[in-house]
Order: sequence, then C-alpha cells, then structure tokens
Amino acid sequence: MADTSTAAPYPATDRTVPTRYRERASYDRELVHGILDTAYLCHLGFVRDGAPVVLPTLFARVGERLYIHGSTGARPLRAAGQADPGLAVCLTVTHVDGLVLARSAFHHSINYRSVVVHGTAHEVTDPREKREALDALVDQVVPGRSRDSRPATAKELAATAVISLDLNEVSAKLRSGGPNDDAEDLGLPHWAGVLPLAPGYGEPVPADDLDPALAVPEYLTAR
Amino acid sequence: MADTSTAAPYPATDRTVPTRYRERASYDRELVHGILDTAYLCHLGFVRDGAPVVLPTLFARVGERLYIHGSTGARPLRAAGQADPGLAVCLTVTHVDGLVLARSAFHHSINYRSVVVHGTAHEVTDPREKREALDALVDQVVPGRSRDSRPATAKELAATAVISLDLNEVSAKLRSGGPNDDAEDLGLPHWAGVLPLAPGYGEPVPADDLDPALAVPEYLTAR
Repeated sequence: MADTSTAAPYPATDRTVPTRYRERASYDRELVHGILDTAYLCHLGFVRDGAPVVLPTLFARVGERLYIHGSTGARPLRAAGQADPGLAVCLTVTHVDGLVLARSAFHHSINYRSVVVHGTAHEVTDPREKREALDALVDQVVPGRSRDSRPATAKELAATAVISLDLNEVSAKLRSGGPNDDAEDLGLPHWAGVLPLAPGYGEPVPADDLDPALAVPEYLTAR
Repeated sequence: MADTSTAAPYPATDRTVPTRYRERASYDRELVHGILDTAYLCHLGFVRDGAPVVLPTLFARVGERLYIHGSTGARPLRAAGQADPGLAVCLTVTHVDGLVLARSAFHHSINYRSVVVHGTAHEVTDPREKREALDALVDQVVPGRSRDSRPATAKELAATAVISLDLNEVSAKLRSGGPNDDAEDLGLPHWAGVLPLAPGYGEPVPADDLDPALAVPEYLTAR
C-alpha cells in the first residue's frame, strides 16, 4: 500500500464541511485511513424510492478505494449494478472512545472518531479485483485470516456482488478529552470526567464440530 | 413505560422485509426495544440535495418514540424543523456481538443485532416534551445520570433542537451462533468459531478540575 502520510488532504467540499464544530473536522488522509483501518463495520446510506435507507454492512479499504459485498440479490448491490452511472451512497464509520460526563446535562457528550464518505458506488466486474476485494473484506475483520481459510469458488464468486467506492469526498470528525463545563458549573457536586470505551474481546469459542487438534490461531489470541 | 411485552409486533412493510436472510428478521417489539435500549449511538440517514447523508448521533427511546438532539444549526435538525410534513429519515442501530470465522472465506460473518427504523422526523416544540427528551438522551448513555447533573437552562434549551421519530415501521435483524460451513469443508485445517465481542469499559478518568472529594458514582462503577 502506498505511503500516503505526506499526501495532500482530501479536498473539503460543501457537504464535507460540517455546519457545527468545524474544529473537530479533518481531511487528513493518514487520520482517515487510521479510523477506517481499525473498523470493519460501516453504515451505508442510499436512496430508495426517494427515501433514505441505512444498513450496517462490512467494508474493507484497499488504498483509496472501499469495498462492500453482499448477495447479488441484496438491494443496494443490485441497485449499484443496475444504476448508471452507479449508486449515490454515503458510507459512515464510527468509533466510540468514551462517554463524557459533564456537570451540566447540556455538556454531556461522547468521545468519538468518525469518517463520512460521499460518492458513487460501482459494481466490481473485474474478476481479479473482485477476488482481491473479498480477501480484503475478510482481512479487514481479522487481519491475516484470508490466507487461513478456503478461498472462494467460482460459484461463490458468482453469488457475491462487490461494489467499490473511491475515497474522494471524505471527512473525519473527532472529539477527545474531558468535559467542557461552563466556569460557573465547576463547583457543582456532580462527578465529571470520561468513561473510556474500547472493543472488549472474549475468549474464542470453537465451532461445535471443530477438530480439537486445531489450536486458536495467533491472530485471534493477539486481540 | 407501558408494558409492551404482549403487544402486537410492528407490521412488516415492503421496506422492512429484507430481500435476503428473511429468517434473521424480527418485528417483535420487546426484541426491538431491547436492542435500542442497550445502545445510545445510531446512524441517521436523510436525503440532502437528492443524495444520501449518514451521520452518527446519540438517540434515546421513550416508549414508542425516539429522540435525537443537536444544535439548532445542525443540518438534519434544521431540515426537520423546516420540512413539512417533516424529514424522511432512516435510523439504524447496530450491536456487533462476535466475529464469525468459518473454514471458507465465503462463510465468514459477524454476529450482530440491528434495528432499522423508517419514518418521518418532526421537531419537538412542546417545552415539556423537549426537556424530557433531553433527560432521556443523557440517561440513554448513562442510566440515572440526568438526575445527577445540572438541568438545562432556558438558554441551553433554546440552543438545542430535538427531533422525534415514532416507532411505526421498524424491523430488527439478528445473527447468532457459530459458522455455517459447507459439509465438505468441515475437515479443512482452519480454526473455526466465534470471537465474542462486547463493549469494554476502562477506569473512569476524572476531569482535571474535579473536586477530589467527589467519588466515582455507582452508575459508572457498575458497568
């Protein structure tokens, strides 16, 4: 993957400049990639019969392109394949890092990192790109896993649709740190601070029919 | 809050019946309420200039109504207040409960519980409902917290917009359990099973300017 740390930021557009808390917005590629790469779930928005639809789905990033997959019968994937020039989407990824408790109800907040991508999704038709995208989707959830599983068959590939969304119109938004109480509230007798939050992984649960000789792989125990 | 455990399920509509994995869908009110009540973050979708927008935001449930708040200057809140008869939205809540590793790349999945609400959002103008909604928004994140913080002033109430969305067109979707590998893959030498996932809370971090005499409240230590 290309080193993008010195690359130009994503250009700010009318719809990626927030109306509120502009100081929380960022267009830095490295920052955006970092938020995306530590996630695998996104919320994909599209318009169907004039109304918005938001569905949770897995995604993967490969360079400056995101991939989403699903059954060839799933609505957004069918729509992206049929629509010309593609399907207008908004793809949003959010990490919650902490609950922010202020003395005042008004200043309660959460610490978060989010990325919003606007663009047009297209069906991936090139067989090689499609296969690489499906590997990336597995590896986005569990890095390294695609090499430790049975690759997709031609039939499975045919049953799966993949759509791509290029990272052109992209913004990140972040909040961190403690509560921002008003000066006159600092003496109030309410605890104030942050309750940190991070994904908590449990012990891996082997499949009922798993050969007991197969140990839990290191890419899981490392989490 | 009314006991809804014996209430009729939400009616299935064209847009709440999924095209795929219909057996994973549910319209049970108690199930839907349970998924909503253990969350506080939603992804709100709406249409702006013909294109979809998906933003992460806090929400609260009170009975069969959801509330969202924000600055009176924020786009969706402004749009809901100005639009007649309101703003068409899709509000989605997702919990990820586990990563599902199958022998085949194709059968990788995640265990999740999600709720999708379609409807029209309206600005809350009644002062009493607005105040109760703001309390509910604080309590949705940290139950009991609204009683242990300084209530909103008239000025703060005026600076905050609240929109409501009734639970009419609602569906839940769930996946649980282990991987569903094909019979011919069961002997492959790849570990298969589930990596459970749940929110992990860290130690509460007091605000820099907090009076050290104020102990961490029980509603935080209980998490």
